[in-house]
Formats: sequence, structure tokens, C-alpha cells
Amino acid sequence: MNTFGQIFRLTTFGESHGPGIGGVIDGMPSGIEVDMDFLQAELDRRKPGQSALTTARKEGDRVELLSGVFEGKTTGCPIGFLVRNENQHSSDYDNMRNVFRPSHADFTYQSKYGIRDHRGGGRTSARETIARVVGGAFAKMVLRQRGIRITAYTSQVGNIALTGSYHDYDFSLIEQNPVRCPDPQKAEEMAKLIAQVKADGDTIGGIITGVIQGCPVGLGEPVFDKLHAQLGAAMLGINAVKGFEYGEGFAGVTARGSEQNDIFQPAPDGTITTLTNHSGGIQGGLSNGQDIFFRVAFKPVATLLREQHTVTADGTPTILKARGRHDPCVLPRAVPIVEAMAAMVILDNLLLAQAYK
Amino acid sequence: MNTFGQIFRLTTFGESHGPGIGGVIDGMPSGIEVDMDFLQAELDRRKPGQSALTTARKEGDRVELLSGVFEGKTTGCPIGFLVRNENQHSSDYDNMRNVFRPSHADFTYQSKYGIRDHRGGGRTSARETIARVVGGAFAKMVLRQRGIRITAYTSQVGNIALTGSYHDYDFSLIEQNPVRCPDPQKAEEMAKLIAQVKADGDTIGGIITGVIQGCPVGLGEPVFDKLHAQLGAAMLGINAVKGFEYGEGFAGVTARGSEQNDIFQPAPDGTITTLTNHSGGIQGGLSNGQDIFFRVAFKPVATLLREQHTVTADGTPTILKARGRHDPCVLPRAVPIVEAMAAMVILDNLLLAQAYK
Amino acid sequence: MNTFGQIFRLTTFGESHGPGIGGVIDGMPSGIEVDMDFLQAELDRRKPGQSALTTARKEGDRVELLSGVFEGKTTGCPIGFLVRNENQHSSDYDNMRNVFRPSHADFTYQSKYGIRDHRGGGRTSARETIARVVGGAFAKMVLRQRGIRITAYTSQVGNIALTGSYHDYDFSLIEQNPVRCPDPQKAEEMAKLIAQVKADGDTIGGIITGVIQGCPVGLGEPVFDKLHAQLGAAMLGINAVKGFEYGEGFAGVTARGSEQNDIFQPAPDGTITTLTNHSGGIQGGLSNGQDIFFRVAFKPVATLLREQHTVTADGTPTILKARGRHDPCVLPRAVPIVEAMAAMVILDNLLLAQAYK
Amino acid sequence: MNTFGQIFRLTTFGESHGPGIGGVIDGMPSGIEVDMDFLQAELDRRKPGQSALTTARKEGDRVELLSGVFEGKTTGCPIGFLVRNENQHSSDYDNMRNVFRPSHADFTYQSKYGIRDHRGGGRTSARETIARVVGGAFAKMVLRQRGIRITAYTSQVGNIALTGSYHDYDFSLIEQNPVRCPDPQKAEEMAKLIAQVKADGDTIGGIITGVIQGCPVGLGEPVFDKLHAQLGAAMLGINAVKGFEYGEGFAGVTARGSEQNDIFQPAPDGTITTLTNHSGGIQGGLSNGQDIFFRVAFKPVATLLREQHTVTADGTPTILKARGRHDPCVLPRAVPIVEAMAAMVILDNLLLAQAYK
Repeated sequence: MNTFGQIFRLTTFGESHGPGIGGVIDGMPSGIEVDMDFLQAELDRRKPGQSALTTARKEGDRVELLSGVFEGKTTGCPIGFLVRNENQHSSDYDNMRNVFRPSHADFTYQSKYGIRDHRGGGRTSARETIARVVGGAFAKMVLRQRGIRITAYTSQVGNIALTGSYHDYDFSLIEQNPVRCPDPQKAEEMAKLIAQVKADGDTIGGIITGVIQGCPVGLGEPVFDKLHAQLGAAMLGINAVKGFEYGEGFAGVTARGSEQNDIFQPAPDGTITTLTNHSGGIQGGLSNGQDIFFRVAFKPVATLLREQHTVTADGTPTILKARGRHDPCVLPRAVPIVEAMAAMVILDNLLLAQAYK
Repeated sequence: MNTFGQIFRLTTFGESHGPGIGGVIDGMPSGIEVDMDFLQAELDRRKPGQSALTTARKEGDRVELLSGVFEGKTTGCPIGFLVRNENQHSSDYDNMRNVFRPSHADFTYQSKYGIRDHRGGGRTSARETIARVVGGAFAKMVLRQRGIRITAYTSQVGNIALTGSYHDYDFSLIEQNPVRCPDPQKAEEMAKLIAQVKADGDTIGGIITGVIQGCPVGLGEPVFDKLHAQLGAAMLGINAVKGFEYGEGFAGVTARGSEQNDIFQPAPDGTITTLTNHSGGIQGGLSNGQDIFFRVAFKPVATLLREQHTVTADGTPTILKARGRHDPCVLPRAVPIVEAMAAMVILDNLLLAQAYK
Repeated sequence: MNTFGQIFRLTTFGESHGPGIGGVIDGMPSGIEVDMDFLQAELDRRKPGQSALTTARKEGDRVELLSGVFEGKTTGCPIGFLVRNENQHSSDYDNMRNVFRPSHADFTYQSKYGIRDHRGGGRTSARETIARVVGGAFAKMVLRQRGIRITAYTSQVGNIALTGSYHDYDFSLIEQNPVRCPDPQKAEEMAKLIAQVKADGDTIGGIITGVIQGCPVGLGEPVFDKLHAQLGAAMLGINAVKGFEYGEGFAGVTARGSEQNDIFQPAPDGTITTLTNHSGGIQGGLSNGQDIFFRVAFKPVATLLREQHTVTADGTPTILKARGRHDPCVLPRAVPIVEAMAAMVILDNLLLAQAYK
Repeated sequence: MNTFGQIFRLTTFGESHGPGIGGVIDGMPSGIEVDMDFLQAELDRRKPGQSALTTARKEGDRVELLSGVFEGKTTGCPIGFLVRNENQHSSDYDNMRNVFRPSHADFTYQSKYGIRDHRGGGRTSARETIARVVGGAFAKMVLRQRGIRITAYTSQVGNIALTGSYHDYDFSLIEQNPVRCPDPQKAEEMAKLIAQVKADGDTIGGIITGVIQGCPVGLGEPVFDKLHAQLGAAMLGINAVKGFEYGEGFAGVTARGSEQNDIFQPAPDGTITTLTNHSGGIQGGLSNGQDIFFRVAFKPVATLLREQHTVTADGTPTILKARGRHDPCVLPRAVPIVEAMAAMVILDNLLLAQAYK
């Protein structure tokens, strides 16, 4: 199903080479001023052709709001939106009509649906994430009024990794480089690696770190829909994601409980805080008021600009070489998508928590 | 919300020291023979007191089916079930009524709901997973008719880790040791580590590996509800889970696309297969017919049998020492829970795929 | 699916001659005092054997709460509950194992599921409504704190009908007679008719009127999930219901707009009210602060204590005569069910409206 | 929420005087040939300006498909669509910016959301039903392949009513007159009445009858989501609907069980049929293979072309006279909407039934 969220809901549609990408945002609170500059800026962070590191495709990605806004404010009615596709080179994909690209969804789509739009990957194209960024931008418009800030950055590309925790970095540096890494030195190394990989006609993966600050205590549903389970599902639903961890994550399995428990203590303002935050801001599936932080693993892009063995739809071996314009590494452009998904999860849970007050 | 699944749905209820744990399974296909021995055996794999490695609590955990079964077969009507609590030592928890246990959900529950059942952790107790095991057992009864097998095992405890892939092990050995590890030598080491940790009044985490075999091509929904996003959410919704990865997971971010792509080739039976399975059996969010495998990270249990600093509900610092009977390591008992959640995800998607045929 | 509601949700299970009827209430606000006397009283209003007008079956219908309540208050966790079946005469139904009762669900269940529990109608028994009454009672515990009152009464049996609107009656008289009709004179006539019908081995239908008072402005969702669409679905989901109307309903189709429009005017307290209430308290799908009123049509019970022609499961003509103890008219016992369903709809929408504040 | 359906789902957006009306169809089976002529013809049946009986507004209502279709067939991906608004006279509504139209949703929207788009009724405009007709047209494309036919017609306007059952009419006559009534004589009377009412600046209601033929046995969910409960909710979610009944409906409450039970008998083809169909094709909430028929009551349109007393947003009494172009009776244009909603309900349940096979 193409709907995300429980009471703040995004429903999306669109293929890479069809008329456009769009969606419907349902459950948006009313009376929120719509910041069109911010919305477009978020889309611009995602769009291709931003730098030498990303695909050279040029896409304007201008969003048109079709409903739900009146005199600059949200009305509580669903917000339809559309980003027209343009500058498509569908013929670049003619050779893929009957060929299954390795590690892409061509084979599984064809098997499931018996038909697929092969042009530009159709529905499986990363262009689909445009709709997520729009949904996330609206969520952020509400969250910032509540003092909730969502930040993501590239923390690893290939084997070049940040070694510090998110505390050690100045978030204002993230957008200062095309990799979206808050460590300028590492960013340069990552950029070089991506350029090298691109020159090889190859691709590379990496890790994005996400941080949610200012989240009130008690968001999430404690059994199946733990806040981190919702965040995990949101991230794992992004193309190319292979893993999700929060707090100490996988590394924490080697520590003992006595090393990882977060001791409660009184805060200066009379509330209760924790001495450490190994938990990653969530305990028992509910936010505890500390920063929420998590990491998302992205595999290397499956589209290579070199020859690969594969088969045609009838199982005949063939050789495929992608044409077209592709990203050697999705990380830089995936940063705003990670933020968008996180923003929608948090807003959805914020609204749900209000329901029971 | 306490419901899991889209059209095969489990709704659960129950606290550790209330009358019992139970739930409702809705969307169960009709005409399936109910294997009560299997159902009880699955519960026995989860129950405490199985071995020296787990808590010494004795719980019979006998399940009563309340509906949805007639003359030994499912009727298509919802299956209500109940496992009575027994042998509770509620007074063991008297000192926790007004104290927040570190890294537990006491503080977040109290903040969210303004009230909580502190006895045995109430709803946050791992006893809640009884209902998941029941749901999973029913799902497995259908899946085995379709040739789908779901297996989980402990692959790491603390820093003792299996080094091989799941291919390298004989699954029939898993249930031969109390750790549920298919490598008998490693299992012994793990058991020793757990015993040591227990003697220290401490706890330890680890990793469970899950494998799904025989899954048909095309299960999952390709955008938000990718099959691995659903599996991830299912696993992250289990108590103490901090991370989920599938296929090459986090480790795969350092490889290049040319190293990780799974080349398609014709299979001897005329279908299409892949030369390798770095993808972990899912491409574009849909099962591709190869084995699905994933890893789930569990943190060390938060309940320590030693003194910890913490605060009371009004923020006063205090010292807490847990009484009672607790697991030093949840991994061995979590293995059937991982399987249960996976089974429910797969059946739900199997049914959903049939809807559109 | 056996779940009702969006964020206040009731999931039910149980058959007439199985172990019991029960369910799970999810999304119940926390901190609400549980009024067990009220809960049992609501069940007693529904239970058989109350009067000579209803079936002579004796059922204690004692409810056991299995979770979600601590020291007399709701905790925000799901409330599991169970009413054991007792005093079943399953052998009364032996002759129905392979016979399809006319206008019952035997044939459709058998066709859909390939199996059915024929004893006492199985899942299709009106005993299933026990779970609805429990869910409704919890909803009412919240609603009465908010000043919302829900009342239903029998307004027609066969061709004996109340002629006045709900304004004309004293609601305190409803429970004063076994028909649950606020007009004592008409109630007596209805009772006589029911007794006559019963003596004939026949059955009769009627109409229940429902009234919701004190509902705040703005409940409901304005497009598909209009408040009256939700109320209608709730009522049409009750056994034997054949129609639903609200406000002027079917009768209003002959009037002109100028006769039916409800003119707005200022209320003495500074709010806005309407001069008339032809709309029935809902405009554009949203409650407008006026009383909500609606009518629900029930067909005559399908089970007759006389011979009827029918067929067996293999299509062979046969003659059926019901044994057992049955209601000649469901109206009196359906009154609390109508209230329960209305209460759940209103609470669900009340909570949802709070989410967006 | 603006989504309709469980696994065949329509999500809609759009206001009368915004950029357009549209939506997303999710869960559409793949490989279905898209009949664009049929789709546009369905929209034309709904559009204004068809005849002297409807509003004189001219709207092209051309639909653009934005996704989910490839080379003329559905792909299983969501189908986005958009109908641009045109020929709007927004200034006709300037006087309604701060005035609440009687029996419209202005007051309730303003109270719920604190803001509303007053132009042309905004989201509450009947233009919203364009999206339903598109969704219904796609559903019909699948249903006709399965031999399921859905027909609706005007059976009453004011006090001019058809007296026969649907069996008595030739459905091919329905589209032969602007009222969409299969009795040409009555159609003419209805047309005269509508013309008279229009000349008076007034409005009138009526009843639409719906018939579903060829539906297989077993569609629906037997407890809350009975097939007729879903149909009822679908119809009650249409603007101006005040009542829904099926089978014998309200009239049936005066009959006895012995008069209304539908006796089973063997059918010539070896299946089982019923002698009569008082049940209206649904028993126990599940389709029984007989024709499903129902009736939907529409109130007179609230917009009058004459003066009405009302209040402004701050509660000051005022006098309102609508300008603009309005329908004196919605029945003729509502016929395709009733069909569309029924088609979506049936397809959704058809797919769901397949899931459990």
C-alpha cells in the first residue's frame, strides 16, 4: 500500500517517466502557515544535479499544491500536490524493457504484477521520494512550532566514517558541503571516494545518522508500534536501505547491562533526566525526552555504468550496460529523505498522543 | 495500538501480574487443522525456567483457545486465546511502585498514561510476547502447508559470535542446546558467558539471526511497506531490540556495487535465480524467491541484580536493587519470538498477494 | 474483520457455544475509574431471560476483566475481557449441522469458509453483541465525564409506532417496561403484540430510536467518514438491522429545502445555535452541537418455532423446525446494543478530534 | 480521513475553487485495460450542465491520469488522477466568507478547523464526488470482467415515487431521460416537479435505488463490516444522504418472520438459491448470490435561490441570498455516484475474499 502513517498520512503516486510524482497529505493540522520557500528548499536538497557528486540529470522539481491551503494556511483538508516530470530520456531505457537489471526490482515487479513500466525504473525510481520530502516538509512546519528539530547527515561513505557521536559536530556545517557531512575534512575524503567510484563506473554505500531533538516524553505506542519500530519501518522503506539501529544499536550487544543502563536523575528544572543516553531517547518504545538518534545503512546503488551479466524476461542470459545519468552514491541526496520520514513519524505520534489527553 | 498486521492481524492484551496474557487472531484462513501440540511446544520454547541460563520463574503457560476453532479446524472466525498468569510474586515489586527502574519503561509509561501497573513491569513485561508466540504458531501452521520455513537462532552473545553465514550451520542443532545456537562449541562458550554475567548480577546482549526459506516471489508492498520494512518493524517491536539489518546489512556499506549486485541467471527448472544473494532475498521491497535472512540486535537486559542509582516518581534520588527472578540474557528465549513475528509478517503478505490475483 | 473503530478500537471474538465471548478494547484513555456495577448493569440490559418477552435462556453473563485496569482505574493499556458461555444446550442444534436455516447466515458462512460451527449459530449468534456492550460501557464511562449522554428506546414494534419525536418522551420511563419504550401505553400494546407473535411461533421486527445529547461541535470526518456514515455503519453492523436514517431521514425527501433548512441564530450564551434541527445534529458530516437523533430498522428474527422448508448442505430439500429458546422480537434487548455502538463511535471521534488540536 | 476502502482504496483531495479535484487509487489489480472512454463517460454522467434540470455551470471535467497505467493497462501501482477546476466564479461567493449558510457545513467546518475555504463550498462542494466517480469507474472495469453489474436509478423525487420493485423496470431506459428514472412517465413527472421547484428558488429531495447483480456468494465481513454496513457507510458518506436501507428495509419491520424469511431451494444448476429475496442479497452480512438492492434517501439541497435568515461568523443575524448556479435536485447527478461507491465496496470485498482462499 502506498500510504504512510496512522492519523497524519501521506499517500503517494507516480513513476519516473510518467506525467509526474505526487501525493495526498491527510490529517495535516489546520491553521499552519505554509512556507513555500522552505518546501521548495527541501525539494532542492533532494533533487539531482546539485553537485558533481550526484547524477547530472536536471530536474526542476517544482511542486504545485492542489488543495488544502487557503490564503496561505492549511485548512485541515487533504493537501494534494504534484511535481511534473520533465527532461526525461525514456529512450535511455529501451534496452531494459525486457531485461532484468541486477539487484533492481525489475524481476520482482514483473513477477508480482505481470507488467511494469521499465522507463527510468518506473515506480521503483528514487523520484518517488519527492512525495516523501513534500510530506516531511509539511510535518516539519508543525514540528518546528513545537520546538522539535530533526537533523540528518552523512556519517559514513564506503569505509570513510565519522568516529564521533552526533554531539561532536556542528550541525550548521552539514549543508556546507555536497556530501552533507558535518566534518569538513571527512566530507572532502568522502567526496573524493565518490568521485573515484564514479570514474570506475561503480557505486558505493554508506550510513546516514539521524537526530531528533526537543521531542516530548511519551510519544510512541509501547507494544508493536514502538517509536523506534515506526522509525525503523520508515527508514527501511527508503530505497537501498539495508539496516537500522538506534541508541547503541548493534555495537551495544557486547556491553553489559551495568555499562549501558541510563541512570535517572533530577534535572535542574524539576523534571527527570538521564545521566547518559545509551537508550537513544526511547525507553519501552516511548520517547523519554532525551535526544533520539539512529543510523541508517544504505547499500551501493545497483545501477552501474559498466557491463553486467543478467537475463531477459524469458530467462535468456544477456549483458546489460546502463545508459543514462545515475548517482554513484545516494547518501548526499538521501539525507533530506531520512529527515522527511522521521518528521512524519514524529508528527503522527505527536497527534496521536494528543488524542488521549 | 496493540494490533499487528494488515489482513492477518494479532491484537494482544495482558500484564505480567494481572489475570493473564491473551489476544485475538483475526484473518486466519479457515479449514486449517489446529496442531495443539505444536502450539504448546512453541510456548514452551519461550517460557521461563527452561534451563539454568534463564530466569528460574516457573510458569506453566498453558494456552486456552476461546473461539475460532471447531472440531479441530479453524473456522475463519477470530481466535481468542488466554494464558493465565500464575505463580506471581507481586510483592517482589513493592519497592518499584514509586521508583523508576533505569532503562525500563516505568518513567515513560508514567509520563504518558499518568498511571502504571508496576508489578512485574505490567504491560512492559516480556510476558506480553506469549501472545506473539501464539499468533506466530497459527501463522506457521499455514506457512508449512505452503512450504515456507522460518528459523531463528542465537548468533552472538556479548562478543562471542558465529563467524559463518547461516548456510554453514545445521539447523537441527539449534534446539539441542539452551542458547539456541547451531554451533555446539560456540553455544557452550555463550552459555559460560551468560553464567558468568549472571553470577555478577549483570546482563548481556546479543544477536539473533532469522532465515525464511521457501518464500514465493513477489511478497511485500514496494514503497512504504517493503517486505523488509515490515520485518524490521516486527523485530524492532520486540522488547530490547536495538537494531535490524538484512542481506549484507551495515557491513555492506563498505563494498562497491559491482561486488554486491546479485547477477540473475536461469535456474535449472526454467525459473530465474540469482548467482549470489547479497540482497537477502528481497529486491525493491519484494521477495525474490531466494532465502530471506536478517539479524536482530538485542541490548543487555535492563534489570540488574545489583544496586543502581535512580529516582522516585517525584524525582528524589534513591537506590534500587531488583528482587525477583530475571534473565541475564534474553537471547535464548527470544528466538521463538523472532520466528513468530516473521511468520506473521510473511503470512499477512502471502494473503495480501493472493487478494490481487 | 472483527475490529471496530479507528483509535478507540474494539476487537471481538467468540461463538455462542464455544468457551465464551470476549474482546479487547484498545485506545481507552487512562485514569478513568472503572464502574463495574455499571458495566454489569449494561450487560444485564442485554442478557436473555429478562422478561417474558425475551428468550427464556438463562445466562449469567458475568464479565471478567483480564487486563488494562489497575487499582480500579484504566491504565491506557488494552482491556481484555471474557464472558464465559454457560447453560448451553448444544444438542438443540444437532439438526442444524447440515441444514441451512432460512434467512440465517448458515449458507453464506458455509460458502465463504467451507466450515462452520452450527451450534447456536456459532459466531453469528447475537451473543456476539456481549462484546459490543462491554466496549460501549467503557466508552460511556468516558463520555459521561464529558457530559455526553446516549439514549436509545424502542419506537416501533410491528405496526405499533410512537408518533412523537424523542422530545415528547420522558427518557426515565424507558427502563420501566420490558419493551424499553418511553410511552407506557404503547409499551403495553407492543408487549401484547410480541406475546401474540410468540404464541404463533412467529417473530416481528421494529424500530429503535437513538439520541446523542451534549456532543461538542465538530466531531466526524467530513468526506467518507461523516459522523452519520460511521453511526450508520455501526448500526447496520448489528444483527438483523435493515436500515438507518438520521434527522428527517427517508420522510424528509418529500419536503422542500425551504421547509427543512435549519436557520442559524445566536444562542443566549453567545454561541450559535439553530432554530430547528431537521438536520439531526450533523451538518456536512460533522456534529453541530444540536442533538443527534437516528432510527434503526430491525427485521423480524429469522428463527421461527414452526416448520419451514429449506435445503441441506448438499441441496436436498428438507423441513426444519427450530428447537431451543429464541426471542420473538429482538428490539427490547437491542436497545443497549444500539447505545453501545453509538457510544463507541462518539468516543472514537472525540479522541480523534483532540488529536488535531 | 479522506481514504475509502480496505485493500482497494481511494484517497481524495480538492476543493471547488482550488486548482482541481483528484485522488489516488491504491490496490488496483494489474493488467486491467483502462477504458478511457468509459471513464470519461462516467464523469460526464456526473457533471453539471447536462440538462435543464441541473445547474447551468459548465465544467469540462476532463480527467488526467498521472500514474499507474502503462501502455494502456494498469500496472498495480497507485493511479494518481487530477481534474482541473475551470470556469469558477469565485466572486459569487464573496458574501459567504463570513456567513454561515443554513444546513451547510460552513459552521461546522469553521468550528472544527478554525478556517475554511468559503468559495463554492470549498471541500464540502459536491465537486469532491468527481474523485469517487473516477475510483468507481476503475472498480467497474474489474467488476465487469467478473460479470458483476451495478445499476442505480432515481426512484423518487419529492412525492413522485416508483411503485414497483427494480424487477419491474428496463434498466436500459435509465439513461434515456435526464432524471435517470427507468419509468419514462414518472420521469417526466419528476422533471416537471424539479422545474417547478427550481422556478420557486427552492429545492427537493428523493430516493435512489441501487442494484448489484452477479455478485458471488460470500463477500463481506460478518461482524462489524457486514457487506450492507459497508454499503451503508459508503452511501451515507455522499453529500445530502439521510438514510440507507436494503432488502425490505424500514417497510419490513411490520411483517412477520414467516412472511419475510427467504426459503432455500435447489437451483437448476446444482447450486442453492432462495425462493424469495426479502433479504436483499445479503444474509449474516455476506452476499448470498442473489441480487443486492438498496435505497438511499437524499434531502433537498441546502442552497436556495431565495433569502434565508442566518448569522455571520461572530453570531450577528443577517440575511443570505445565494448567487451562483445550483442544482434544485441532486438526484439525477447522484446516480453515478451511488454506483461508484457501490462498485468500490464490492471490488474491495471481492479482493479481500480472494486473500483467504
